Amino acid sequence: MNVPYFEIKERVIRLQAMLLREGFDGAFLFQNVDLFYCTGTMQPAVLYLPSQGEPLLLVRKNIDRAREESSISQIVPFDSLRRIPGLLSDVGHSPPQTIGLELDVLPAQFYLQIKKLFPSSRILDVSPAVRRCRMIKSSWEIDNLAKAGEMCARMIKEVPEILKPGMSELAAAGRLEISMRRQGHQGFIRRRGFNQEVFYGHILSGPSGAVSSYVGGPSGGTGIGPAFGQGAGTRPLQTGEPISIDYVGCYNGYIADQTRMFSIGRPDDEVLRAYDAACRVHDLILQRTCVGVSASMVYRWALEEIERLGLGAHFMGVEDSRVPFVGHGVGLELDEFPLIGAGFDLPLEENMVIAFEPKLVLPKHGLVGIENTFLLTRQGLTRLTLAPENFGIL
Amino acid sequence: MNVPYFEIKERVIRLQAMLLREGFDGAFLFQNVDLFYCTGTMQPAVLYLPSQGEPLLLVRKNIDRAREESSISQIVPFDSLRRIPGLLSDVGHSPPQTIGLELDVLPAQFYLQIKKLFPSSRILDVSPAVRRCRMIKSSWEIDNLAKAGEMCARMIKEVPEILKPGMSELAAAGRLEISMRRQGHQGFIRRRGFNQEVFYGHILSGPSGAVSSYVGGPSGGTGIGPAFGQGAGTRPLQTGEPISIDYVGCYNGYIADQTRMFSIGRPDDEVLRAYDAACRVHDLILQRTCVGVSASMVYRWALEEIERLGLGAHFMGVEDSRVPFVGHGVGLELDEFPLIGAGFDLPLEENMVIAFEPKLVLPKHGLVGIENTFLLTRQGLTRLTLAPENFGIL
Repeated sequence: MNVPYFEIKERVIRLQAMLLREGFDGAFLFQNVDLFYCTGTMQPAVLYLPSQGEPLLLVRKNIDRAREESSISQIVPFDSLRRIPGLLSDVGHSPPQTIGLELDVLPAQFYLQIKKLFPSSRILDVSPAVRRCRMIKSSWEIDNLAKAGEMCARMIKEVPEILKPGMSELAAAGRLEISMRRQGHQGFIRRRGFNQEVFYGHILSGPSGAVSSYVGGPSGGTGIGPAFGQGAGTRPLQTGEPISIDYVGCYNGYIADQTRMFSIGRPDDEVLRAYDAACRVHDLILQRTCVGVSASMVYRWALEEIERLGLGAHFMGVEDSRVPFVGHGVGLELDEFPLIGAGFDLPLEENMVIAFEPKLVLPKHGLVGIENTFLLTRQGLTRLTLAPENFGIL
Repeated sequence: MNVPYFEIKERVIRLQAMLLREGFDGAFLFQNVDLFYCTGTMQPAVLYLPSQGEPLLLVRKNIDRAREESSISQIVPFDSLRRIPGLLSDVGHSPPQTIGLELDVLPAQFYLQIKKLFPSSRILDVSPAVRRCRMIKSSWEIDNLAKAGEMCARMIKEVPEILKPGMSELAAAGRLEISMRRQGHQGFIRRRGFNQEVFYGHILSGPSGAVSSYVGGPSGGTGIGPAFGQGAGTRPLQTGEPISIDYVGCYNGYIADQTRMFSIGRPDDEVLRAYDAACRVHDLILQRTCVGVSASMVYRWALEEIERLGLGAHFMGVEDSRVPFVGHGVGLELDEFPLIGAGFDLPLEENMVIAFEPKLVLPKHGLVGIENTFLLTRQGLTRLTLAPENFGIL
């Protein structure tokens, strides 16, 4: 399904207003997701987005597909970055003096090439602006995110039939994944952070849940070994252990993030008490979060509540592997703005979509927690991930 | 399974010799895969590899896991790139004057930070050296690659039970994927190229196979739509159409790439003739490729053969979407050296592992071709992807 014309139109206008306000003359967007967001197509291409005037999409390959998918009016073929200054001038743009590039994701070699092509220009990081633009979702985006949330709920419905003692985490993972694929899940999940690989999410059982990994999140896992040291591994599921299923749905590229807990047979009371505590933090966030409050304040509330419940030392990891946040924006990428964490003082706004994931790592038992993706409106948070929230004892 | 001690030792020695020969004083490696290759662990870390002397692994997080997994002797914690000059000097390294960075994958912001920390040093791209080091596989790596090849073969065995008319490409994809997961597949597949996303591979039926995508390869597909415009889509499988299954096995991080053809009922004779032509090119490559011949020469042989067979206009894509290669190295990444294509004049060496994929795009019918991953030895090519090579008519 193509991204609607008005959707692209409005995104471009909003981002251009931000560029103008922040003193950019124009930005070159290279990264897949930023390109798709601003144009509706994801081809090998570069978008020149002037702070004023018509954007120019330069396409290396599949120009017909770009024209079918994108409502950008100026789409032209190109074969080398060296042509950029000439192509800009062809459509009446003067060389930008202050250029925005996605310095957080753009490989250095492209930065160096653009710098060479515009030797007297200043190059600044445009990613914070792009990410702030992308963090406010349109109603079309919200519809897609809600569908991704429904996908998560339908997957969870199948879990009681899937989980059996003795089955490996990997085999269980495969069953969760085929449930999503049948529903139209694209499989590939995007993360912006450098080296931050993700594959659907994590299913972790017992002690696997307490293994910290390179992933920027509270859950890790052994994975298959050092070569992919996160998520499901070969460990067989055992009775009485907490099994956390942190899997993301994805619809039209949009991601909903959800975690639910299960066990085969009754788990230790400590596990159930920890789950209850995580749910209390979750409910407190749900009650209090509103437009205008800062992201770091919501994080502080969560911290205070979990400390009050006596589990502060286990919150979002233990010791060195603890992460300083309790939630994150989701959209086309899993790690969007806002980060609900320390130092992120931006006030929350209407139409942000945020995954809150209060989780506890119990070194003896594993990972215990809950996660839902919410839409923030003037009325507060609306849940998009609709699976039942009880700890599922099978 | 940890990467053996001697494996890491030898890799470091080989890469250091290359750094020394190419005039680097040392390299900072940031990227996940390069880190894993040189250290055996993949944590949030930076490796300083001097051209002479002991490497220094600086770890932000999970230092215990790094020490368990890696046989690098100097592993120290760090919390900011700013500490790097001090930490280097602590272990007796003078500041490198010529620094290697992975300019093809390293985000510009890290390049700029390193530049600031070593203002009087020269920074050059070290990725070509790393990639040339990685393209020659050890016997331990070859064992893992062979196991990945066996995984592909076992998956293909299940195909006759999986493919049914009316089933969507996505549902069929899910079945192939769960077969791999049960065998221990890590799921996530790595590609080095910027924006080059990959998810297991592609299953494409009929006209989907002729849709070109942003992926740097002969096959594309519609995917689920513009948000992920490659691979399986919602299109139902139909009788008499070619169905190409280009899926990669993965064992301990090592990838084997294989393509096999199927149809439900007999396909058009043109499809079978094209498959026969692709196999002839494949067999010619298999007969002639040997140590010492250049990669571009093998590509030329393939081009000449397919032109002799009258199908040159369909080889590796049509018109603008044609790609100028017929094979690529595989290892920890899907797009390793050598590229078997135009302009890649490096002579082939013993213990390279290469996927050859002669394919034809028939706009009326779809994608037809074959792909195998081979080990190159003094005796020639040995096939690692062991599924039967016939066109499977179900």
